[in-house]
Formats: sequence, C-alpha cells, structure tokens
Amino acid sequence: MDALIHKSQDFVFHQEVPPNGGPPLNRLISEFVTPEPDFFLRTHGDIPELDCTTYRLTVAGLVGKPYRFSLKELRQQFPVQEMPATLQCAGNRRCSASAIKPVPNEVHWGNDAISNAVWTGCSLAKVLTFVGFPGHAKHVEFIGTDLCQKEGTETRFGGSIPLARALLGDVLLAWGMNGQPLTREHGAPLRVIVPGYIGARSVKWLQEINLLLTPSRNLFHAHAYRLFAPSVSSSSADWEHGLELGELSVNSCICAIEEVSNGLSVRGYATAGGNRHVVRVDVGYGEPLKWIEGSFQDPAEAGVWRRWQAHTPKLLVGELICVRAWDSAANTQPEDPESVWNFKGYMNNAWHRVRFGMPWENVKLAKPEIEYYL
Amino acid sequence: MDALIHKSQDFVFHQEVPPNGGPPLNRLISEFVTPEPDFFLRTHGDIPELDCTTYRLTVAGLVGKPYRFSLKELRQQFPVQEMPATLQCAGNRRCSASAIKPVPNEVHWGNDAISNAVWTGCSLAKVLTFVGFPGHAKHVEFIGTDLCQKEGTETRFGGSIPLARALLGDVLLAWGMNGQPLTREHGAPLRVIVPGYIGARSVKWLQEINLLLTPSRNLFHAHAYRLFAPSVSSSSADWEHGLELGELSVNSCICAIEEVSNGLSVRGYATAGGNRHVVRVDVGYGEPLKWIEGSFQDPAEAGVWRRWQAHTPKLLVGELICVRAWDSAANTQPEDPESVWNFKGYMNNAWHRVRFGMPWENVKLAKPEIEYYL
Repeated sequence: MDALIHKSQDFVFHQEVPPNGGPPLNRLISEFVTPEPDFFLRTHGDIPELDCTTYRLTVAGLVGKPYRFSLKELRQQFPVQEMPATLQCAGNRRCSASAIKPVPNEVHWGNDAISNAVWTGCSLAKVLTFVGFPGHAKHVEFIGTDLCQKEGTETRFGGSIPLARALLGDVLLAWGMNGQPLTREHGAPLRVIVPGYIGARSVKWLQEINLLLTPSRNLFHAHAYRLFAPSVSSSSADWEHGLELGELSVNSCICAIEEVSNGLSVRGYATAGGNRHVVRVDVGYGEPLKWIEGSFQDPAEAGVWRRWQAHTPKLLVGELICVRAWDSAANTQPEDPESVWNFKGYMNNAWHRVRFGMPWENVKLAKPEIEYYL
Repeated sequence: MDALIHKSQDFVFHQEVPPNGGPPLNRLISEFVTPEPDFFLRTHGDIPELDCTTYRLTVAGLVGKPYRFSLKELRQQFPVQEMPATLQCAGNRRCSASAIKPVPNEVHWGNDAISNAVWTGCSLAKVLTFVGFPGHAKHVEFIGTDLCQKEGTETRFGGSIPLARALLGDVLLAWGMNGQPLTREHGAPLRVIVPGYIGARSVKWLQEINLLLTPSRNLFHAHAYRLFAPSVSSSSADWEHGLELGELSVNSCICAIEEVSNGLSVRGYATAGGNRHVVRVDVGYGEPLKWIEGSFQDPAEAGVWRRWQAHTPKLLVGELICVRAWDSAANTQPEDPESVWNFKGYMNNAWHRVRFGMPWENVKLAKPEIEYYL
C-alpha cells in the first residue's frame, strides 16, 4: 500500500494495488459531507505526485491555439465556486451483481463507492468560454496524469462529457475539498467534478482538456464504462454498441439498522443522476413486503445525495428489509439485480435488500463482516 | 361527441365528454410521425373555438409590464422553429395500473395516450428573453382558454415548468402540427410543446404565460399530476408532498405482434424523459423469460419516441412476451405494476407484458378487443 495514503483506520480496501476502497457503511452516512479520511478512493493506476507550482493544465483540441494555465492563473482569472457534489462510481453496489453471476477483473465494491464533499474550484464553462470554441465542438475530454494498465497497454485515465453538459456552469475544475487543498489521492492539484455523472468522468490529476467532435477514444471511455445487456459477455461485446455511461440512474442503499425502543431505525443514502433529485424513498419490510415512506435528513438537490431514515416495527432475525428511491423524473429502481446484471457489473440499482441481523442477502462478500447488522 | 372533432373512424374514445382517446395500437406505431387523425386526444373541459385574427397571448407575472402578442406578431418577430416531439400523457398505461387496484375518476387510458408529431412555432426562450424577466423568476406558468370542472369549481387548465427548462430553447409556442395549421382539438391557435415532459405541461389554447416565483397554483398543477406512494389515497393525500410530475420516466410498450415464417415479429414504442433518449429495448419471452435485444426503427433523440422491433421464436398461445426500455442515464423500468401503483394511476412504467394470442395480462379493459392479438 502506498504509504502516502491517509485513510481512516477501518477504511475497507477492496483492492490494494492500485488502492480502491471505502469506509464502513454506518460511518459513510454519519455526516452529510464525508470527511476526507472516509471519502471512498477509486484509482486505476499509479497515484501521481505533482508539484503545484510547476503544474500546467492544457486546453486543446478544437480550440485552435492550445492554452496552458497554471493553478495560480485558474484561481485568479476565474471566479471561485464552492459547491457540494456526491461522487459515485459506476461500480457501486457491484457486490450484489457479482453474487448473481461473477464479474471478474473488476473491483469488488460493496455499497461504499460513494461519498459527498464540498468542492472548491472554478467553472469549466467559464474556462471554455474564455478560450473559445467552434460551433462544431460537441464533447469535452479530460485526460489525467495517472498511468494505468489497460488491455495490455499503458494509458492515461480519461473520458469525456457532452459540451452542452460542460457549459451548464456546475462542472468544476476543483483544487479544494471540504475547505482544504485537494489531497494527492483525490486528484491534487486539480480534478474535474461532474455532478450527477458516474465518478469516472470526474477525472483526477487533470492534465489536458480537449474539445472534440466525438466522444473520447480514451480506453477508459471507449472500452469501459459502457452498459450491455445481461446476455452480452466480455468476448461478445461490441463496444461501439454499449450504452456510453454518463448520468447516474436512481439508486439507494441501507447503511445502518439499529434497534430502538419500539422497533428498528433504518438509515441509508439515496441518489439521482443528471439534473434530477431524489424525491422519495420507500422502505419495505417483512414478507409480503409492507412499505413505509422514509424521511430525509438532507435537502433535495441535483447531484447531491439525500440521507434518509425510516422506522419499522420490531422484526425477527432474518426478516427482509429493502429500499428503493424515486427521482424527480418519476424513475424508480428495478426490483431484481438479475434483470440489470451486466458483465462489467455497472449501475446495479436494484432494490437494496438485507435480512435483519444477517449479512446482505445474496451477497458473497470476501469480507462479509463489514456488512453484518446487529 | 363534439361534431367538430375529426378523428379516424376506428379511433378509440375512452371517454366522450370531454373527449379523450387514442388510435388502435398497431396503427399508432405504423409511422414515425403520427398523422393528425390518429394523434391521441386529451381534453379536460370544453374545446375552445378561437379566432386566429383576434387571438392574443398575454405574457405577464414577474415581467413587469404585461405584453400582448397577436399570432402574426409571434410569427414575424421570432424565428420559426420546426421539430419532432412526442407527447405522452402521465396517465398513459393506466389500464395496467387500474387492473391491480381501481383508479376511479380518471380516464381509463390504454397504452395509447402517446403520439409523435412535427411541431412548428417559435421558441418560448426567445419570447421570454424578448420580454425580459427578473433574476428571481423561477417558474413559467401556462394557462389555457379551456374551462374545466375541477373540485367543484370551474377553472382554466394550466400548469408550470421551471424557468431553466423553458430557457433551453426547445420549448415551442406552436401554431403548426405536421406541416398544417394546428387543429382546434389540438390547441389552435397556439399551444405549448415541452419535449420530455408529461403532456399536461404542453398546455393547449394558450391564453397566458406568467413568470412566477413558485410553481403554478392552478388546480391542474397543484392538485393533480402529482405522484404518491402506493399507500396514499385520495383522502389521505397531502398535495404539497406529492412528487410534482415534470420529466417523464423511461417507458415502453408492445403494440403489435405478427406471425412470421419462423416466429413472431414484435413491435412497439419506447420513450425517455427530460434530455434523455432511449438506448436499448429488451424483449423477453417464455417462462422463465429469455431476453433478446430489440432493434430501433427511429434515431435516438431526446423528447422523441423510438419505435422498435424484435424477432422471437414461435410461441404457444398464452406464452408471455414483455418489454422494458433503458434510457441514456441507465434508468430502466420497474418489473411489477403493483410496486408503482398510485391512486391517480400516473406514470405506470412497469414492464409491459402480454400473453401471445390473448388480451393483455391482468388488464380488465372496457373494450378488450382493441388490445387482442392474432
């Protein structure tokens, strides 16, 4: 393990090289803003160590003459913006998918590939407007500094978002996290924050921004983060045909269950993608399921999670508890993880089910104790 | 029936006064652009008959001095825009919801409360920019000329959308439909078209636009078109708490099944809401379900349906066929209509299931023959 990584003592690493992990679930939802030592860590290769003073961001592609910005120039030339945004990996909740059918060669995420922070930086829209771009530019590519092994070659991590999304004003080039300078493991000196999108588009250790006609050809965009039907395998996949992941789907998880005087207090998080926000959480218990509505601890805001809580009657050990969320476009989660299974284990947003006092239902975790209850 | 309504001979009226209905399903998907005589008809009250020459649109509210536009002024002052947009009622597919548990006092829509047309008009964004509005304006209310009975009072139909949505440039004030002047039953002389939103926001016979601080208090916005949990009834509903419907959820339907030489040709439509488009359709058949991927007849475009087709092996009478769609934010449809049931029967987007050669499964239609197959 990289000795420079500073995470909580009980942070759970699902993979050591490169390091990937998250905090215990009950602590994940203990605060609206996740403290940096608890913030989930997603890396695809080495963790670069960059010098803030010599760092330069290149903006190139269809902009004509490439621009190079120092960190100081970005901080002085553009208004400073601060905003909360929840990052969530497309592989969050993969554990329930791989319990249905194995998902090899991917990080075995539990429900912990998600965290929320307050980011400080400048608006990508303002930077793009400053450099100017032609009308035929349609995509904005982000390339990191990190070198990753992918399909037998060494490549820098990257991906793109539609230019129209980049211009909405809430995509940040961030140098701060929770009021502190960005740490090395979270992308210092500069990273992208794309609210409502899969975490992979919030590229860390940002080296280049390229204006493009078409989506990025970077392997982490063109040959990863695409969604296929359950029947497609890694050998039969036509990468051009898969759903190019971008906006997140609606999702929710149970993170903590506590016995209270007259029943159970059930708590968790819920998220929505794009410009949508979470509007409702339904918590079901028993068999047949009885549904109650959860109440929210956090306000409704696009791109930001809402922690929720619900109070169920007393349950017996082994009785079912599940959750599903609704977003502001009336989308809700599918019931069965089998019906959304795909060979990369992305975007599992089936109802989250647990059995009271037992490990997750249907989940064969390497470390099941981290998701035990009571 | 209003003698001035010109619909196809086999148009199916689910209600006569006010008139509400749609075309037979197999014809619904016969063309990308629905011919006007087949376009579904949704009315809440009388159908106004307005004189184009004396017609005026008022733009008021937070704009300061109200503006009044004649149709001629709108046509001459702003660039003419033409675009396809699919309209879909929030009550589409109510029949499968009310088969679970009755949904009284609502139009008993089948899968036919949807159609696609090419609309001609001017951009609402350009009109709003022309009149100007203060920074604290947040919602745009549309009020029609039609008088409707609602909660014991007579009220004009209306509703609102967020100003940010109105400014995206693709919300039209439309006077034309499929290259012809808008007909009286579809809102002449002027109606709103809000792509990706529930049809109720595409207000017909448009009389007023009001810039507001908060969403519309019109009864058809504040006391209708809200989504509640299955446990909520009309008597227990807290209208302030329900999900204020806006963007559509992802949906799909089977509309036609034909025997071909070596199996069945299954066809239908799929839709996505907001700025999302339909990316995939999965067609399942048999028990246990086998899934195949449908192919699309129409391009992927936000706010516009995609008709699809799939080819299954031969099936026995009574065998199951179902469909579910995926949107570009990786949202998919829930499996079970019971889990999305609500007392208004809105936004039923559960997998659409039929049994080969039989009426819809679980559906007690007043006119079951319209949805019989083979």
